[in-house]
Amino acid sequence: MKKTIVTFIALACGAAVQIFAQQAIWGVPSIISPEVSTDRTVTFRLNAPNAQKVMITGDFLKSGVVEMEKDTSGIWTFTSEAINPEMYRYNYIVDGLTIADPANVFEVRDACTVFNYFLVPGEGSRLYEINDVDHGTVAKVWYDSPALGMKRRMSIYTPPGYETSGDRRYPVLYLLHGMGGDEEAWLTQGRAAQILDNLIAEGAVEPMIVVMPNGNASQEAAPGETHFGLVPPTVALPHTMDGAFEEAFPDIIAYVDRTYRTKADKQHRAIAGLSMGGFHSLHTSKQYPDMFDYVGLFSAAINPRVEGSEIYKDREAKLRRQFADAPKLYWIAIGKDDFLYKDNEAYRKALDDMGVKYDYHESAGGHIWKNWRAYLSDFTRRLFR
Amino acid sequence: MKKTIVTFIALACGAAVQIFAQQAIWGVPSIISPEVSTDRTVTFRLNAPNAQKVMITGDFLKSGVVEMEKDTSGIWTFTSEAINPEMYRYNYIVDGLTIADPANVFEVRDACTVFNYFLVPGEGSRLYEINDVDHGTVAKVWYDSPALGMKRRMSIYTPPGYETSGDRRYPVLYLLHGMGGDEEAWLTQGRAAQILDNLIAEGAVEPMIVVMPNGNASQEAAPGETHFGLVPPTVALPHTMDGAFEEAFPDIIAYVDRTYRTKADKQHRAIAGLSMGGFHSLHTSKQYPDMFDYVGLFSAAINPRVEGSEIYKDREAKLRRQFADAPKLYWIAIGKDDFLYKDNEAYRKALDDMGVKYDYHESAGGHIWKNWRAYLSDFTRRLFR
Repeated sequence: MKKTIVTFIALACGAAVQIFAQQAIWGVPSIISPEVSTDRTVTFRLNAPNAQKVMITGDFLKSGVVEMEKDTSGIWTFTSEAINPEMYRYNYIVDGLTIADPANVFEVRDACTVFNYFLVPGEGSRLYEINDVDHGTVAKVWYDSPALGMKRRMSIYTPPGYETSGDRRYPVLYLLHGMGGDEEAWLTQGRAAQILDNLIAEGAVEPMIVVMPNGNASQEAAPGETHFGLVPPTVALPHTMDGAFEEAFPDIIAYVDRTYRTKADKQHRAIAGLSMGGFHSLHTSKQYPDMFDYVGLFSAAINPRVEGSEIYKDREAKLRRQFADAPKLYWIAIGKDDFLYKDNEAYRKALDDMGVKYDYHESAGGHIWKNWRAYLSDFTRRLFR
Repeated sequence: MKKTIVTFIALACGAAVQIFAQQAIWGVPSIISPEVSTDRTVTFRLNAPNAQKVMITGDFLKSGVVEMEKDTSGIWTFTSEAINPEMYRYNYIVDGLTIADPANVFEVRDACTVFNYFLVPGEGSRLYEINDVDHGTVAKVWYDSPALGMKRRMSIYTPPGYETSGDRRYPVLYLLHGMGGDEEAWLTQGRAAQILDNLIAEGAVEPMIVVMPNGNASQEAAPGETHFGLVPPTVALPHTMDGAFEEAFPDIIAYVDRTYRTKADKQHRAIAGLSMGGFHSLHTSKQYPDMFDYVGLFSAAINPRVEGSEIYKDREAKLRRQFADAPKLYWIAIGKDDFLYKDNEAYRKALDDMGVKYDYHESAGGHIWKNWRAYLSDFTRRLFR
């Protein structure tokens, strides 16, 4: 048997080109990529001796894309400048073909594209790392939505100790994704579970339940997780920003309050989201003025894609009703370079004209996850205190 | 605003080569791959006009690998023969470089390699599909293992209705992965949640909790999910099959019985696993003879990698003790072509020589997920009845 096992391991760490066979065997990349050095430079490698031109594109590159260089052994390499601690993502472009780094198994999907990711350690990424702290539970649950006529999937984070805390009840943050996202997005690119674990561990935020529903009203779940089969993701979904999601929101609240030990009142409910999710937060919170005492609009879209829904009518009157018993926090955040900046400016002006109170946070940068992770880290500190 | 959104969508469905910018934009593949036809042929496509040679390797190919053909537009294509309904996986090999299919976002990681997957619909894959039935909850939880000196992550499936079933208690299946796997493996390649959802929906199995721990005693969690950072996966982990996992198994049971509404006795506990997980099931169940009334060895490794642990001593005496109050089911399954076949044959002979009773299922094929999914579908029907 000892001999068999040795063979097993040898196969496991075998050839770079792996052909399927009748045994479960694996190839491992013979190179390390990316390699994050202590000086915060990062080296990327790709073993592609036959390629003519290899580029790397990533959100850590000022130019967006750079050419890699081939060494005599056929390995293409690029070493970055020292880059700031943060979570980053990248792809290779090999002779015009965009691919994931075959040496890096750490990937996230954003809408239709799979990216590799890495973290540069340091203060800017500390909250996104998995640290040696107590961890909450992340569950994928299915709830019934009579309003949408579907069973639907969502992600739910319960804080460390939830399972063993007896009758203790918790406040709830409803956290919404943007267009092209789904119930996975805040967990993968948003690092929501890590942010909550870390902030709870340091006592900076109240232990809370975080509910991440699927905001695409035509979907029951993320691509690949539905009974409609392995349908490729698309951004141009029907029933997006047409009022259907907001109308059906009470189904989500009902499930959560029935299933989890929540503090089921306005004082202990927050809603926030990015881009389309900020839009959903804006319109859901004004539609149900007794539901949320904390509202966060992160790089929010402001105007509906499809007019006509009851949800979007009489915005000012509904906002006045919402602010008559004003939320404890109405927090608007956006980056200076965001393509939705002007819409947000106009929305703030509308709120100013109404004389209602909100908090405003303006960051650098555009419509990117780096900002949304930071906004979440900031917003959650302000909740339920 | 309408104009802004149009731009947004246009970007979203934009160029095949996508360069990072200050806005969150996505590329979508301009081609569909794979395309599963109603005649059960499958067409694969790759848009790589500059490539010289493209091959596809997959577990549905008798030869393991075939060359693709380039059309005049630079798209490489391969159409398979009609293939049997099943879940399959594949990669492309582009001028010697093994990559995932950029047009297919559905991927699984097996040890160090990322594969694309697809399902051919039909009877053979029906249990692996997400059907329009009630779905259980899948949670990633962290438990404390004093015996291993770590907090560790595991996956837990609770059946549909668990949350709303009041005081009802459930039996538990402990389901263990193989070498190179972790707490994700049975959910991704094993389709355990789909199998349980579907079999429970048709009344073929008892609603049960399925606990999928991480069987690598040196790991706290799957790669990328630990506080040790984004360490690439490796198969050659320390403390693998050296007794540490089996010794620490009571920590898992203690957490599960404390946290979930379990029927916490031998009559309502099963343990099963594939390859190394079958090995762990064998040795854990004989080490704790009062713990499991159902044992499943799927393509099990039989002999330890590292001798010397107390766990592996006196195998026959411990088996005699286990079978003195014999498990209701001791189920051994293996494929005719499995590289562990001979070891299993020797183990069955040892059981025969001891005069103990077990059930034996021999399938076609080797040491592959296709078999393990089928074994799970078969084994769970036999539990707790």
